[in-house]
Amino acid sequence: MPLQTDILSLAANQARGLAIDAVHKCNSGHLGLPLGCAEIGAVLFGNVLAFNPDAPRWLNRDRFVLSAGHGSMFIYSWLHLSGFDLSLEDLKNFRALHSKTPGHPEFHETPGIECTTGPLGQGIANATGLALSQAAAAARFNTAEHTIFDNHVVALAGDGCMQEGVALEAISFAAHQKLDNLILIYDSNDVTLDAMANKSQGGDDAKRFKALGWDVQTIDGHDLNAVLKAFNKAKKATGKPQLIIAKTTIAKGIPEVAGTAKGHGEGGAKFSDGARSGLGLPADQHFFVSDDVRAYFAGHKKKLVRNYKKWVKTFEAWKAANPEKAALLDSRNARISAAHLLEKTPLFPADAKLATRAAGQQILQAVAAELPLLIGGSADLYGSTLNYIASDKDFDETNRAGRNIRFGIREHAMASIANGIAYDGIFRPSVATFLVFADYSRPAMRLASLSKLPVLYIYTHDSVGVGEDGPTHQPVETVSGLRVIPGFDVIRPGDPEEAAGAYAAALERTDGPTLLSLTRQAIPLLNDIPPHIRRAGVLKGGYVAVQETAPLTTILMASGSELQYAVNAAKILGEGTRVVSMPCFERFNRQPAEYREAILPTAVRKRVAIEAGVTGLWYQYVGLDGKVIGIDRFGMSAPGATVFKELGITTEAVVTAVQSLS
Amino acid sequence: MPLQTDILSLAANQARGLAIDAVHKCNSGHLGLPLGCAEIGAVLFGNVLAFNPDAPRWLNRDRFVLSAGHGSMFIYSWLHLSGFDLSLEDLKNFRALHSKTPGHPEFHETPGIECTTGPLGQGIANATGLALSQAAAAARFNTAEHTIFDNHVVALAGDGCMQEGVALEAISFAAHQKLDNLILIYDSNDVTLDAMANKSQGGDDAKRFKALGWDVQTIDGHDLNAVLKAFNKAKKATGKPQLIIAKTTIAKGIPEVAGTAKGHGEGGAKFSDGARSGLGLPADQHFFVSDDVRAYFAGHKKKLVRNYKKWVKTFEAWKAANPEKAALLDSRNARISAAHLLEKTPLFPADAKLATRAAGQQILQAVAAELPLLIGGSADLYGSTLNYIASDKDFDETNRAGRNIRFGIREHAMASIANGIAYDGIFRPSVATFLVFADYSRPAMRLASLSKLPVLYIYTHDSVGVGEDGPTHQPVETVSGLRVIPGFDVIRPGDPEEAAGAYAAALERTDGPTLLSLTRQAIPLLNDIPPHIRRAGVLKGGYVAVQETAPLTTILMASGSELQYAVNAAKILGEGTRVVSMPCFERFNRQPAEYREAILPTAVRKRVAIEAGVTGLWYQYVGLDGKVIGIDRFGMSAPGATVFKELGITTEAVVTAVQSLS
Repeated sequence: MPLQTDILSLAANQARGLAIDAVHKCNSGHLGLPLGCAEIGAVLFGNVLAFNPDAPRWLNRDRFVLSAGHGSMFIYSWLHLSGFDLSLEDLKNFRALHSKTPGHPEFHETPGIECTTGPLGQGIANATGLALSQAAAAARFNTAEHTIFDNHVVALAGDGCMQEGVALEAISFAAHQKLDNLILIYDSNDVTLDAMANKSQGGDDAKRFKALGWDVQTIDGHDLNAVLKAFNKAKKATGKPQLIIAKTTIAKGIPEVAGTAKGHGEGGAKFSDGARSGLGLPADQHFFVSDDVRAYFAGHKKKLVRNYKKWVKTFEAWKAANPEKAALLDSRNARISAAHLLEKTPLFPADAKLATRAAGQQILQAVAAELPLLIGGSADLYGSTLNYIASDKDFDETNRAGRNIRFGIREHAMASIANGIAYDGIFRPSVATFLVFADYSRPAMRLASLSKLPVLYIYTHDSVGVGEDGPTHQPVETVSGLRVIPGFDVIRPGDPEEAAGAYAAALERTDGPTLLSLTRQAIPLLNDIPPHIRRAGVLKGGYVAVQETAPLTTILMASGSELQYAVNAAKILGEGTRVVSMPCFERFNRQPAEYREAILPTAVRKRVAIEAGVTGLWYQYVGLDGKVIGIDRFGMSAPGATVFKELGITTEAVVTAVQSLS
Repeated sequence: MPLQTDILSLAANQARGLAIDAVHKCNSGHLGLPLGCAEIGAVLFGNVLAFNPDAPRWLNRDRFVLSAGHGSMFIYSWLHLSGFDLSLEDLKNFRALHSKTPGHPEFHETPGIECTTGPLGQGIANATGLALSQAAAAARFNTAEHTIFDNHVVALAGDGCMQEGVALEAISFAAHQKLDNLILIYDSNDVTLDAMANKSQGGDDAKRFKALGWDVQTIDGHDLNAVLKAFNKAKKATGKPQLIIAKTTIAKGIPEVAGTAKGHGEGGAKFSDGARSGLGLPADQHFFVSDDVRAYFAGHKKKLVRNYKKWVKTFEAWKAANPEKAALLDSRNARISAAHLLEKTPLFPADAKLATRAAGQQILQAVAAELPLLIGGSADLYGSTLNYIASDKDFDETNRAGRNIRFGIREHAMASIANGIAYDGIFRPSVATFLVFADYSRPAMRLASLSKLPVLYIYTHDSVGVGEDGPTHQPVETVSGLRVIPGFDVIRPGDPEEAAGAYAAALERTDGPTLLSLTRQAIPLLNDIPPHIRRAGVLKGGYVAVQETAPLTTILMASGSELQYAVNAAKILGEGTRVVSMPCFERFNRQPAEYREAILPTAVRKRVAIEAGVTGLWYQYVGLDGKVIGIDRFGMSAPGATVFKELGITTEAVVTAVQSLS
């Protein structure tokens, strides 16, 4: 539709005013982007984007991701003006306790926020994940008769995002995958937080993106018509992701700081009176929105809702014509029970000895059949992580319905793209690499936990059992490093049956991420413990694996591949010894106090834990009187079994430790 | 010098043989790169690189970094052939326990290894750090009369490294900084571990690098003359870093797997007999090196040593002419004592109330004066991290002597470049960003610890005290997440004087990294504790801050900004209460058992700890009978003081917890 530049210019300046007033009021926040990108916001929310404020999770909406999350007043202002459930009062509570307008946009907190952003670079990768999800959804659900998914994903990023490695990985990935439903707007204002951007960056961005396989347009980001033209061109383009380099003036509207690093944060707020006057805003009315701007957006909303209703009609027709597809799409909202998944996962032969990653390979095939919307990927390690869904093929430009994504050697973007898929909520994402490289994806894992995203991490080679690859590849602190992230479940199964429980636990969970920490090396099935006990025990996080046969004197604890040593030690130590398998600290700590007391009675202080990793977190279970057998150093390059012995992770060590306790 | 292609071709094939035999012997390792890059190795070690095997740490050697560390047999073979202290026996012990030839190259383990590599992408950033260090050294130490530093840094990387975000960040940084002493060889073999590279990457690499500001050459990596020509051109070029895209055949020499993903790892080893025959190696003699190849490298070594001796003469003349510069350069090897640094750091006014980051700003100026080789940088946050060395200026293309590096918004490369600087051993690197973004630099931090590099991390905004920026920017688990890395010291000072102790402790340490976790918010000086106790106490990691005045009944513990609450609570709780300040778990845990027992007597079980973060690691000090007041959830967006109260981090909480204990 033709652009009403007069009213949208006015809206842009009023959005600037909202940002200035909100930041001024709480004396905190970032003015640079909301002011520098006001015209972009006006065109996006006043014209380009398809959405319905009354149905903010509409399946076929255009997704907008503010990768530069510090500019949060940008998105809050435009969501408010567009008619989302975000009042002027909410804007006035910017950055206040329990408000809907926190310092950085948070998924779950505010309608219309697609992703939690702020940690730089993440939003670009999240948007790549949304684009992937939408492309996959279109491939799975659209039919020749009915188009259910045909939207775009638009991300707005500044220099900060564009310098980050996670963004650079995602940018390469998006190009390689030819995600042409992805539009990235680069707010290029030549300024970073500290200084002019030319103090830290250079080169020719347009050429760089073109070399990677993007289409590139460069425009004046304050020219409403230019912005509209660029978006319309980008939306029509096919075969490549779309970059719009929008040259802008940071903090435009506050002459004292505009175009400088001082314009980035709240520094300009002290000039708010002059700025508001310059922007044509009434001196006596803060948080001002004029009636004509209100009227424009009310009218625009009507158009948006009309389009939405058209889609609903199509959707209903599609549902009627494609009941199976509709049921599949609906299944995204169903919670699948662990019990059901376990029922569908065959028991392993009792005499089997195999790595939990290899067990995982078999379990994955069983659960993938139950969860057709489960998709996965590996950071170029399918041959080692063994998480290829064998019933399906690669996801790629020619097969958007494929369930296996080759992420390349891009662990950080992989995890952040998985977040994007999870934010979208249609597919259930799982990703894989070596456990030691969890460090590469940690910032995205943290955000998965913060945003309660049910991402499944299948991370293998989980101890010094890695062997010859040596300390660079042997996690010793990685498991503990992840356990400390709030809401992040780490499950380290002790044998193949516990691995089955781990998959079931992870996939049953819908309110947060779970990492499966799986062995490289083969380990025996622990047949002394009945299989259903091993499987169900994992769901509790910790459980009595071997019950004492006399009054309890000693508790042994272990996780993962070291559970076998605790079980063996109990046989030597005799009747009063209990073995507690502790595959998941987080799940155990969520159990009621009574359960925890039943497993680990407070009165029993002779406690020894064993784990092939750093010891610190185990003291919450063994206390000051117990001992932890672990590895508080880096590993070494040698065959795995040799390293285990050399570092004292053995049955004998458990026995000796118990005997040393009074 | 002209290339003896006949003998170097022979050497290349014998190096292939060494790799095949070593991998075959231990049935583990990676053949793809050593075989694919054999001609590159022959030209580098047989012609291009300046080094002296008898003085492997010669200041003006060319540095070679095998970023693709999994191809470790490449570097081991060429170091052996070149005459480094690495015997044929060492090669036969490839990947064996305690050998000098671990699975991935490890600094400290093998002469000639410049950096620990293997985690992909790191080596490219390490090499960038080496190049930065060498450029800085040249600027500081070369004179019009004498050139002491004029070498090159050469890094070899494969597709895996080139896809990683950390590498992409470093590549941008190197271009921006115009580090023309950096030569990156891209082993472009069109294959990754899982599959053909075109399954995960695309685009035009040469154009991409040119757009960033690199010079690019593309060559046949198996053509000895082409390789030599490219290096000679790259070494002569100025003003830009140099990329050589070497097209190679992975695993060349084992026809059954060459050019395919199967050639990457040890898969080709089973074809070793045929391969060795095809390479012209004797069937009956494994680990074969011919006499003429030995003779060539012996002769080449003589030339290298002659050049080295020429340099030594120049160096001696330079020393005589520039005693001050010589003393400065020598000072890199001196260990500076914490006592000395503390003596030079003025006390803070007793009535001061300031953030530990602001205290750090002042302390840094004092210690920087004592350590003229201390250089630093920030990830575009100097205005917040406050770690600019005010007596000096920016490091940039026009001022290589500047002590302040603007790393851009590239936390991962920043930390990895700092590792490169530390590996070089001339400058002492320090880097800074918000603590929550330690996650972005974690893989490099782990390697700093593994390689015992004394990198200083000045990471600020260390708790929910961050306030309005909200949970994305509020570390709650970050401190604990870092504490679990073996050998990695995290110091969280409780007031400005403890901050002085923290800087002194960190800079005295030469065998590993230290992170300073500093507050955003102002905190009071804890004048109840004498300043020298606060300063010296930090060196022990934990110390008695407030001594009980009656028989000890209760121990309170705290770190960082929460120490004030423990001190306040002790006043309320009365005479039998001791306050233990615990700024650094790692230092405390390294103290003798007697010291630890004196601070935390085993018999006293009424213990309460408080820290504005996750609680898990504190149980090693409070045991099963104590309590930890912490934050086992993510934070919230609101003013910092509000968040502290809302999450229960208060003096009252400490008192109540103590009272609840029997």
